[in-house]
Amino acid sequence: MTVRQLSLPELVEHCVRLGVPGVGLWREPVAEYGLEAAAKLVRDAGLTVTSLCRGGFFTTADSLDDNRAAIDEAAALGTDTLVLVSGGLAPGSRDLAAARARITDAIAELAPYAGERGVRLAIEPLHPMYAADRCAVSTLDQALEIAERFPASQVGVVVDTYHVWWDDRAPAAVARAGAAGRVHAFQLADWTTPLPAGVLTGRGRLGAGAIDLRRWRTLVEAAGYTGPIEVELFNDELWAGDGVEVLEETVADFVREVG
Amino acid sequence: MTVRQLSLPELVEHCVRLGVPGVGLWREPVAEYGLEAAAKLVRDAGLTVTSLCRGGFFTTADSLDDNRAAIDEAAALGTDTLVLVSGGLAPGSRDLAAARARITDAIAELAPYAGERGVRLAIEPLHPMYAADRCAVSTLDQALEIAERFPASQVGVVVDTYHVWWDDRAPAAVARAGAAGRVHAFQLADWTTPLPAGVLTGRGRLGAGAIDLRRWRTLVEAAGYTGPIEVELFNDELWAGDGVEVLEETVADFVREVG
Repeated sequence: MTVRQLSLPELVEHCVRLGVPGVGLWREPVAEYGLEAAAKLVRDAGLTVTSLCRGGFFTTADSLDDNRAAIDEAAALGTDTLVLVSGGLAPGSRDLAAARARITDAIAELAPYAGERGVRLAIEPLHPMYAADRCAVSTLDQALEIAERFPASQVGVVVDTYHVWWDDRAPAAVARAGAAGRVHAFQLADWTTPLPAGVLTGRGRLGAGAIDLRRWRTLVEAAGYTGPIEVELFNDELWAGDGVEVLEETVADFVREVG
Repeated sequence: MTVRQLSLPELVEHCVRLGVPGVGLWREPVAEYGLEAAAKLVRDAGLTVTSLCRGGFFTTADSLDDNRAAIDEAAALGTDTLVLVSGGLAPGSRDLAAARARITDAIAELAPYAGERGVRLAIEPLHPMYAADRCAVSTLDQALEIAERFPASQVGVVVDTYHVWWDDRAPAAVARAGAAGRVHAFQLADWTTPLPAGVLTGRGRLGAGAIDLRRWRTLVEAAGYTGPIEVELFNDELWAGDGVEVLEETVADFVREVG
């Protein structure tokens, strides 16, 4: 998503050239390119699919069917991780606890289905500024509280610096999640201000903002995480740039800030 | 601040007419009108000053002097509550813990000075989306952790629904704060999306958004709070409207949603 202006073949070509060993994919461009073709493209290039984004949005009536499809797609792509953005309040509701209960119920339905296909559901807590409309799971503690009801091989959490950096309880949650083998993805983005309208597309380049990214890498790895590190930037300015240059700069930022 | 387009005399006149028994004031319009004149205006009308906004911003070098002045102004206005917006990261820093330590140190300097003047410092946790640039104190738990180092007659917290509504730990913190007599102010605003650029001026009218305001009133009063309830809306649309009408609508919203 950081370089969504690139086609899948361009993305794969330049990741290989730059020594990036894996890519996180989103469902929409994969569907557009063709699921099997995308899987073959990435596999033949020697890259891994680090995760698929995204399942979740359990507010809608047909969400379970759509999430089973997302699990199938993750399995077809050869990734073991489906990221869940769980959805916010039900229409007309002001009850966040009810939203979290509904999310838990949906995950209970999906977890065995995912496990049978070798896919782990990774609950991503989103920053509290998204609690109403995108994700009622706002902290790592809340995500873990849900995940811990299921086997770690079925359900874990995403640690995304953009969403959890402000939370003084997050480091302890990372340690607890890591000890249980429940850190299923680790994503980086920096926090820059002022936030743009709608607060969706202002994630900062690594090093441009307020987050001590290296500290978070240390925390996650000290908790036992050995998986990939994804850079996920939703950023209007980056999307308006040349995709190959943005990819090159992102690799350079990564090496400088957390490498 | 909800009706900042009104002059102080207009504000006082229409609060009296509408049966609003008190007003929260901000330092800038008070200074503009004149401190003693403002105090007399409100007092002669039979209104109370519920709180003064704001002290804090402990990132800047001269913050202690400015905060002592704010305490003096609160005392002169006859209010016992100075709201603190504590400030974010120091320039160039990425260390939120250090920012909170600096805030604690500053409050330690100011608390006795405030206490001697009958003014309580009310630490306001701001929504985590302000952690970098406005307030490193993001949760009621963090605010209480600082407040509890001092006598409740000197330091407490602000419960503002806009900032804490998303936090599943906030109700327990409200109970703990209330039991210790540390809820020093209670403010209402609703959460509406999408957020505007800069995320400062999108606080929703009561009832317009995602927050169960009546539940928060119940929580705060069940914790023993008997003080005033302030409505604090930073909202470009309301500021563009007729101030008297906005005040009338706000009173009607209050009665309907939490009265």
